[in-house]
Amino acid sequence: MEKAAILHRPDSEYAYLYEENNFHIRLRTKKGDVQTVNVIKGDPYLITEDKWYLDSEPMKLLTTTEQFDYWLIETNAAFKRLQYAFQLIGKDGEEVFYGDRGLFDFSEKVIAKAENYFRMPYFQEIDRFKAPKWVKETIWYQIFPERFANGDSSNDPEGTLSWKSKEHPGREDFFGGDLQGVIDHLDYLVDLGINGIYFCPIFKAHSNHKYDTIDYYEIDPDFGDKELFRRLVDEAHKRGIKIMLDAVFNHMGYESPQWQDVVKNQEKSPYASWFHIHSYPVAFGTNGNEEGAKTVSYDTFAFTPRMPKLNTANPEVQDYLLDIATYWIKEFNIDAWRLDVANEVDHHFWKKFYQETVAIKEDFYILGEIWHSSQSWLTGDEFHAVMNYAYTETIENFFVEQSISATKMISGLNEQLMLYRQQTNEVMFNMLDSHDTARLLTIAEEDKAVAQMTLAFTFLQHGSPCIYYGTEVGMTGENDPDCRKPMIWEKELQDQEFLAFTKELIQLRKQYQEVLSSGTLEFIQADDEKEFIGFKRENDKQVLTAYFNRGNQLQSYPKKAEQILAMSRLSEDQIQEKGFVVLVESKED
Amino acid sequence: MEKAAILHRPDSEYAYLYEENNFHIRLRTKKGDVQTVNVIKGDPYLITEDKWYLDSEPMKLLTTTEQFDYWLIETNAAFKRLQYAFQLIGKDGEEVFYGDRGLFDFSEKVIAKAENYFRMPYFQEIDRFKAPKWVKETIWYQIFPERFANGDSSNDPEGTLSWKSKEHPGREDFFGGDLQGVIDHLDYLVDLGINGIYFCPIFKAHSNHKYDTIDYYEIDPDFGDKELFRRLVDEAHKRGIKIMLDAVFNHMGYESPQWQDVVKNQEKSPYASWFHIHSYPVAFGTNGNEEGAKTVSYDTFAFTPRMPKLNTANPEVQDYLLDIATYWIKEFNIDAWRLDVANEVDHHFWKKFYQETVAIKEDFYILGEIWHSSQSWLTGDEFHAVMNYAYTETIENFFVEQSISATKMISGLNEQLMLYRQQTNEVMFNMLDSHDTARLLTIAEEDKAVAQMTLAFTFLQHGSPCIYYGTEVGMTGENDPDCRKPMIWEKELQDQEFLAFTKELIQLRKQYQEVLSSGTLEFIQADDEKEFIGFKRENDKQVLTAYFNRGNQLQSYPKKAEQILAMSRLSEDQIQEKGFVVLVESKED
Repeated sequence: MEKAAILHRPDSEYAYLYEENNFHIRLRTKKGDVQTVNVIKGDPYLITEDKWYLDSEPMKLLTTTEQFDYWLIETNAAFKRLQYAFQLIGKDGEEVFYGDRGLFDFSEKVIAKAENYFRMPYFQEIDRFKAPKWVKETIWYQIFPERFANGDSSNDPEGTLSWKSKEHPGREDFFGGDLQGVIDHLDYLVDLGINGIYFCPIFKAHSNHKYDTIDYYEIDPDFGDKELFRRLVDEAHKRGIKIMLDAVFNHMGYESPQWQDVVKNQEKSPYASWFHIHSYPVAFGTNGNEEGAKTVSYDTFAFTPRMPKLNTANPEVQDYLLDIATYWIKEFNIDAWRLDVANEVDHHFWKKFYQETVAIKEDFYILGEIWHSSQSWLTGDEFHAVMNYAYTETIENFFVEQSISATKMISGLNEQLMLYRQQTNEVMFNMLDSHDTARLLTIAEEDKAVAQMTLAFTFLQHGSPCIYYGTEVGMTGENDPDCRKPMIWEKELQDQEFLAFTKELIQLRKQYQEVLSSGTLEFIQADDEKEFIGFKRENDKQVLTAYFNRGNQLQSYPKKAEQILAMSRLSEDQIQEKGFVVLVESKED
Repeated sequence: MEKAAILHRPDSEYAYLYEENNFHIRLRTKKGDVQTVNVIKGDPYLITEDKWYLDSEPMKLLTTTEQFDYWLIETNAAFKRLQYAFQLIGKDGEEVFYGDRGLFDFSEKVIAKAENYFRMPYFQEIDRFKAPKWVKETIWYQIFPERFANGDSSNDPEGTLSWKSKEHPGREDFFGGDLQGVIDHLDYLVDLGINGIYFCPIFKAHSNHKYDTIDYYEIDPDFGDKELFRRLVDEAHKRGIKIMLDAVFNHMGYESPQWQDVVKNQEKSPYASWFHIHSYPVAFGTNGNEEGAKTVSYDTFAFTPRMPKLNTANPEVQDYLLDIATYWIKEFNIDAWRLDVANEVDHHFWKKFYQETVAIKEDFYILGEIWHSSQSWLTGDEFHAVMNYAYTETIENFFVEQSISATKMISGLNEQLMLYRQQTNEVMFNMLDSHDTARLLTIAEEDKAVAQMTLAFTFLQHGSPCIYYGTEVGMTGENDPDCRKPMIWEKELQDQEFLAFTKELIQLRKQYQEVLSSGTLEFIQADDEKEFIGFKRENDKQVLTAYFNRGNQLQSYPKKAEQILAMSRLSEDQIQEKGFVVLVESKED
């Protein structure tokens, strides 16, 4: 047995309350190395009296990656307290005990010692990671407001271009998109089937993307006003659509009154301590403060002096931002915040943010923009989820870019799932494209089949999927600003087949929501040469089985269930190249 | 290379700010498996422009255990942001890249991809684990107040036994120890050399141990009153001695007015929600509420109905306990809280506890009673340290019980150190005995040499050591209540040699405090057959080398430095059985 590969971490994603009385314990071992894992467990105060260490329960093999096997047991405790350790039996017959003090040869002396056990001291419901239930049931739609629809030309900024005047928008262009345009198309969104909108920033700002906030308390006048926004939220809610706004709290815009006060009054400004300033003056163009320079005299987002970083350790800044965060919930009843550059803001601040927002609305959803492993933000008191680029990029690497094999993709996805608690995975925000990436159809080199099967695969995984505006009608676009083209509204210019496909996919996600959001996931086929993948989603009621053929040969699959969605299916049991099939079986029959 | 053994966890004890601009990165590999580890790192926004991935820096081998090698690099970042990954070269010549998306064959394509890197998004000073500096400089002395000294017979409870009336105290006995007794002996403690007192509970309670609190706002009348306690703190502070009190916040005493109100008014009591009650009535002796029963109708400490568990998720309970926590700091200027059964109280509560106490006194010390791995309490916003039984038991297993080998002990100690950040290890609370364990000399079967060398070894490790009252004069005692005998004050009954030895050890700890609390630790010798161990503590100024001979043969050591402490040393370079020597070398010569 490869003992150096055995891993458990108490009070983490390896040991957590999934539900109030359902405690999950995971263990990692080297792939294919271990035959059986049993858990020995009991109440910490009864080890001597009950000798519970003489019993054990088997773990099940949860998932497998290139390097590892992951094991799981779901358990409970009569007195809400648990000690536990592992008995591992290697394929080579070796038997070891693994607990809080490390590895031992298995013996009664070792298993009888209380200190050798890991501990979940008490099932604290208040510490349990609680994800809002509605997110599991949500299919998101991301809107970049300046480019979705122009519903009111009276608020167009000076120099607004006509909607279709440019095939490739420039970085500084304005096209007049606004909130009225969104209201006008709510019924389009209902027809599409989505039930959550993620808005890129709508607060007063200088640029077209509005990530350089001037006033967090005002709707950008190019987009409308507060009354209009209130109407938008109400109309969306009437239609069962949740609203998520984008909070840019890592930095402010150069034109914000606070930063402008510092530019004017320098170290004498009452706002000087709101930022991280190394030397004065801070005005753009002076003291090394040039775009992209390494000499900027204050901390910024990336290397842009246009976005001075906020000092969120300053209580005044905390109060200011928390007031904004709660204002839009209390006054406008929004359902979620997406937090821009969330990883560069401190944990202390996000914990307060969580407390204050969830206190107002118990099922509020907090989504952080983090592109890398995010365990320390996802322990239950900061974010509910992150923008799951690490997950969806892995899907794209196989389906779209074909830079990794099927087994490598599956391994990568399973590794990502094992970074987080199950309830976290269920509400992860899974988007294949966004305002920050090239569009799906473009990276797929405009191969519709590839784009569609990638979308379908993502919709069938854990997590709540998101469609970037226009992807449903076959829009293309390179990296920003090209991915931010004005929405195509003319039916004849929209890809109607793509739209119909997307609707069907959304309906499938909704119809099988329970098994897709909370069911188990098991990959049952992965052929690297044929690029053919099969997996199962299962709960106690039904089994969904899906086969994806990314290769260029005809593939067979076992036909034994009812088909609910398919692309390029040839016959009852064959799929052509770039095709897939989804089957359902009821367990109640 | 054993790739399944490679481990790193971002934003944890594997990646943390040690000082404001000193970022520690650790990596774990299989023992003896890897030749070289290099870190590739740079600013996340400069990877394309600067191509920093073409450079790397070597990690140093930090420590070794039975299973693993641990590597370390201390680094910084010009813009406080860091991406990093590892290049590992196996002893078999294999070369791999390890980062946020797992393991890859090393190639320029792989290292050029930003998403392959782990991330420390921004060096947040507010999130950095900050340990109070004075704790590193502290030698603690634990006092069980009922048994240390009776300074005022007027407050003796009814039925108080005379100080020396019983060789083995019973569970219900009272001997009249009090705060005046401590004040009377402060100069004894100054002479001993300690500079911190940890008091077992002193608040109004029913039992002799006072863990069943009746009133957290009152000094137990058997011990004195608030004015006396104020004088004690002031007199201690005058002498440079810090004061730590014991907070029992997991549960209350049966006799507390809050619980008594529930007993009287049952579900109608305003305090019913202060506890975890499953059914009524809750009175002792009714409804299955018997000592040790599994049928108690409310959650308790262990299985004792005498200690009903508090519901710390209830804001009223939080406010109540936090007011107590801050009251004793604000009004009496105490320096630290030791938190009883800290692991069974929720994280949410401890985070608030940290915020409110540290806000009053910046260098306040918070010590949790946790006997098992405590990573999730030691991230910088709950406790500064835990009662390090996991560490000191490992020392005792080798030195005292001889149940493990020298190499197993060293491995166990190093594994414990690798669970926590360096600044945490520096302030860990290391005691060899306490009111909850048999006394050191007793588990050593009254072998003084063994007890003394165990004490000396502990004083030379990371962490702040603690002496349990009376251990310094050779007191014995089995598990509680026997370990709580009245202190021996008659000089002729005290072991004067043990006392002199302890004083010398305390002086050594103080004289070499800097290298002992913050210097590196490296084991240079571990002979399992001879039971002979050597290690070095080192900083930029000096090197301390120590050799411990636990075996029963004469052992030689390289004599090349000045001796500062020794036991059973035979000649310039030989140590008899059960002996040790400590040497010092200055690096400035």
